Amino acid sequence: MASTTQEPEIRTAQWWGKPLADRLVSEVRERWESQARPSEDPPCLASVGLGEGSPFHVYQRQQARVAQRAGIRFRGEILPRDVSPEGLRARVEELAKDASIHGILLEHPLPPAHDFARIVSGINPWKDVDGVGPTNVGNLATGRPVQVPAVALAARALLQHYGEPTAGRHVVVVGRSETVGIPLALLFLLRGERGDATVTVVHSRTVDLAEHLRRAEILIPCAGRPGLVSRRNTSRGAVVVDVGLATAMGPDPSAPPRVAGDADARSLEGWARAYTPVPGGVGPVTVAEIMASTVRSWEAARTGGDRT
Amino acid sequence: MASTTQEPEIRTAQWWGKPLADRLVSEVRERWESQARPSEDPPCLASVGLGEGSPFHVYQRQQARVAQRAGIRFRGEILPRDVSPEGLRARVEELAKDASIHGILLEHPLPPAHDFARIVSGINPWKDVDGVGPTNVGNLATGRPVQVPAVALAARALLQHYGEPTAGRHVVVVGRSETVGIPLALLFLLRGERGDATVTVVHSRTVDLAEHLRRAEILIPCAGRPGLVSRRNTSRGAVVVDVGLATAMGPDPSAPPRVAGDADARSLEGWARAYTPVPGGVGPVTVAEIMASTVRSWEAARTGGDRT
Repeated sequence: MASTTQEPEIRTAQWWGKPLADRLVSEVRERWESQARPSEDPPCLASVGLGEGSPFHVYQRQQARVAQRAGIRFRGEILPRDVSPEGLRARVEELAKDASIHGILLEHPLPPAHDFARIVSGINPWKDVDGVGPTNVGNLATGRPVQVPAVALAARALLQHYGEPTAGRHVVVVGRSETVGIPLALLFLLRGERGDATVTVVHSRTVDLAEHLRRAEILIPCAGRPGLVSRRNTSRGAVVVDVGLATAMGPDPSAPPRVAGDADARSLEGWARAYTPVPGGVGPVTVAEIMASTVRSWEAARTGGDRT
Repeated sequence: MASTTQEPEIRTAQWWGKPLADRLVSEVRERWESQARPSEDPPCLASVGLGEGSPFHVYQRQQARVAQRAGIRFRGEILPRDVSPEGLRARVEELAKDASIHGILLEHPLPPAHDFARIVSGINPWKDVDGVGPTNVGNLATGRPVQVPAVALAARALLQHYGEPTAGRHVVVVGRSETVGIPLALLFLLRGERGDATVTVVHSRTVDLAEHLRRAEILIPCAGRPGLVSRRNTSRGAVVVDVGLATAMGPDPSAPPRVAGDADARSLEGWARAYTPVPGGVGPVTVAEIMASTVRSWEAARTGGDRT
């Protein structure tokens, strides 16, 4: 590869998520409020995690704050870390049957004793607001998305917000998890102006990873490996949408966890055309997209569209 | 790109499907016969198409012949070309409910009046032996395949049969249809030694198609565009698994249709390391894989595994 040191530095944009997230949350609130009858309950989101003091617990507090701004009722549940597989499944089934709840988020990955896909399969596809159940991934793969993983929607929304087209561009997704990497690839392959990308999925078994990363016009790492993406393995002028999230709790469980993305942001300055910072990039937009999905589920429930 | 004329010709292998298809059909027969009780009915496959004299009608006759060799009962149905959407849906529903039938194949693409995904959604995932329903594509995408499109299984089986590893290799799939291109990409992304490939999906909106095709170590065209792949846009030593199928009926409706793949086979001679001919490559293996899927469904039905 060409040496990177001879090319002039370029002006690198930082694509923060807050302006977009704020707009989405306002739109979400307006959307359900403009439809609700006076006597009608607002949409309701339930979020289920395991274990006090875990990073997910901290995310729940963020979810609760954003839900409040969107006017969405929020039910955060933390089950004991050692809840039995039957206990967790039963609790999610109860929430799935509860008609007053329009969206269910379940922490994942779960400890190995639990069968995440099976638990999520029991949730109506509309109420599976994070779009991670096999039915929703199948709907996405066959070109009829119902609910799509919020993190994938967030990546797409950021590109659109900052005026970056995807049609015909080469998107490289780093990671092949069922809940993030694969849905991201499928979303950008969809027909239409917000999709239509040429998509490559690379992962831990990829040979010559750097070579593949350098081919990306839009690079979307979601590996959870801080430092994976840097100036050394991206092409000059690439756009990096950093979906990676490595989380570590500090000593104070009430403090936000320390998070890092997959990109070495400092090394991308002057080299990438733009990147999304972590924290502050994809994260806030993801939470806003969960609220938007919850309102779509609420709409489907009140019109009977969730039963088709 | 480097000129192609200066490099010495290489010995190109033609990967015919017949030896593998014959072996699969024998294994399929042995598999169900070794399990069946004396009084038990053999597995049964129903194949539903529209319109006498169509290419699908011809495929049905091939399916019937192979089913016979596998000892599988075969019910070929040709509905009128102008069957109503309700009529077709009702007929498939009947077959889906019929416990004596273990697999249902539905011609596709269907004329625009019909909603293929919706019709197929009504079939139990095991009986959807071609794995084209959203539930099956979702099962594949989330790493728990039940039934997988036979054409994708055939492509993988041919690579394995001819000793071509996929792990860590760069597979380029040309086409993003829900029933072929997307399942192929998902299959080769699965964890495990028959997957683990780095996968790129290119399609009609891809910019610089030739450049992407040349990057493939294993190229899998499924575009239905004869001549799309040739020496001009593949790298020397690449392997081409030709899933493309353009079909034209000749003047005699009882004669086999004329078929062409996406690859210009003549131009690949001396350049590609191997390619699968059309006809005679992926096709026969695909029919054999449908029989294998039908027997898996039969097994699931007799053990109750189809109800989980």
